[in-house]
Amino acid sequence: MLIIGEKLNSAIPSVREAMLNKDVEFIKELAKKQAAGGADFLDINTAQGNSEIDDMEWVVQAVQEVVDVPLCIDSVSPEVVRKGLQTAKGKTMLNSISMEAARLEGMLPLIKEYDCSVIALTMDDNGIPKTAKERIRIAGELVEVFKRENIDMEKVYFDPLVLPLAVDSNNGVIFFECLSEIKRLFNGKTVSGLSNVSHSLPKRKLINRNFLTICMSHGMDAAIMDPMDTKITSALIATNLLLNKDRFSRNYLKAFRSNALED
Amino acid sequence: MLIIGEKLNSAIPSVREAMLNKDVEFIKELAKKQAAGGADFLDINTAQGNSEIDDMEWVVQAVQEVVDVPLCIDSVSPEVVRKGLQTAKGKTMLNSISMEAARLEGMLPLIKEYDCSVIALTMDDNGIPKTAKERIRIAGELVEVFKRENIDMEKVYFDPLVLPLAVDSNNGVIFFECLSEIKRLFNGKTVSGLSNVSHSLPKRKLINRNFLTICMSHGMDAAIMDPMDTKITSALIATNLLLNKDRFSRNYLKAFRSNALED
Repeated sequence: MLIIGEKLNSAIPSVREAMLNKDVEFIKELAKKQAAGGADFLDINTAQGNSEIDDMEWVVQAVQEVVDVPLCIDSVSPEVVRKGLQTAKGKTMLNSISMEAARLEGMLPLIKEYDCSVIALTMDDNGIPKTAKERIRIAGELVEVFKRENIDMEKVYFDPLVLPLAVDSNNGVIFFECLSEIKRLFNGKTVSGLSNVSHSLPKRKLINRNFLTICMSHGMDAAIMDPMDTKITSALIATNLLLNKDRFSRNYLKAFRSNALED
Repeated sequence: MLIIGEKLNSAIPSVREAMLNKDVEFIKELAKKQAAGGADFLDINTAQGNSEIDDMEWVVQAVQEVVDVPLCIDSVSPEVVRKGLQTAKGKTMLNSISMEAARLEGMLPLIKEYDCSVIALTMDDNGIPKTAKERIRIAGELVEVFKRENIDMEKVYFDPLVLPLAVDSNNGVIFFECLSEIKRLFNGKTVSGLSNVSHSLPKRKLINRNFLTICMSHGMDAAIMDPMDTKITSALIATNLLLNKDRFSRNYLKAFRSNALED
């Protein structure tokens, strides 16, 4: 399971504040803490700062001064993504592409030019389909595009875009079916954020944590999450153990010995 | 998901003590607390007291003075089970039958006579098979027995007997496969205890809790567990919500409002 650290996102007020004030220490600290929490990638989103493209360059540079965790460049703008991928050293991920015509056209050349991993959303110009069947159809269309463009499927993470339970109580089940089917039909890797599912319900972290465990049991390969939340990282480590993805219980016991497991 | 409360078990030192001392208030208190925690059945095991059969009668009577939760009579002895089923009012469950010849012969008549639900262990006189395939084969043999004896499959809960991860890191995966396959092949209901999986590992409750969530996502119908552990009942309630088994989020919101959800 890849952990993509979600905290360097300008949608979070304190992060936006730090971007506006060029508070480089705040940014560096968030990068270091997420790396220490086990992040395999750090997502960087600067959409809500002063200048998205300048902020992207500034944050990427700041982060790379303190950690060497690969970066996940998160923007709907191909220009901003290009700036991020240019500035980032080592391997990178692009967040995200989809079957929306403009996004597809803007992002495809960047994936090839920078040979990055990519998050592929199962949506098109009609939005996010309500049914699993339709989202799986879009995943199939994306698979065709990636094949045609010679993009390595090992680098693609499909996000079937979970919708809130509060909108439709079947939205979790629909999402779990997408995870299983994208694996079965396309041998595709999958990814998700964890918070959308619990939107407008109380005790959201409890829901998000169990959502992660169920997603992992359906074979999910990566999660966009908070690596500083020890309750959720503890659930993740225990789930890997249960799914036989932790050889000799090594990670579990290591986390236990370093007091990182929250019971 | 049926919750079978596990606490009235003479393997627990304080419970054994209460049985030896005929401390009826202790027994009643444990029954009331488990009922308040949402138990659908209360397991009663008196194997390690003074006289298993007398203690069974005494505990069943004591419990029924304070709660009307159905009882799950837990013994390897058909005589003790008979005493429990005789004494218990209302619907009951028998814990357990298996393909062991003597146990099968001793318990089958009781299931028919008392029309109780039953936990069916996927083991025979050779013990618990290591592989999923062999345990599923035994489940199939039990299905044949139940059909032949006209026992209603709706009342049968198969327990595929999880073995500790510390013995074989694949033991969780083997168990999850059993849950899915017993459902797929026989439309059989399933049940499990939650603690065996984590035997001799640290922070066992963390493992047990995530084990429950994964089991539920594989369609498990019942768990033998501690209904007084609010962390595990919170995980259960959130998982039911995620799996669309909580109409209008009613149970989740009710638990939230009564401060029963631990985040």
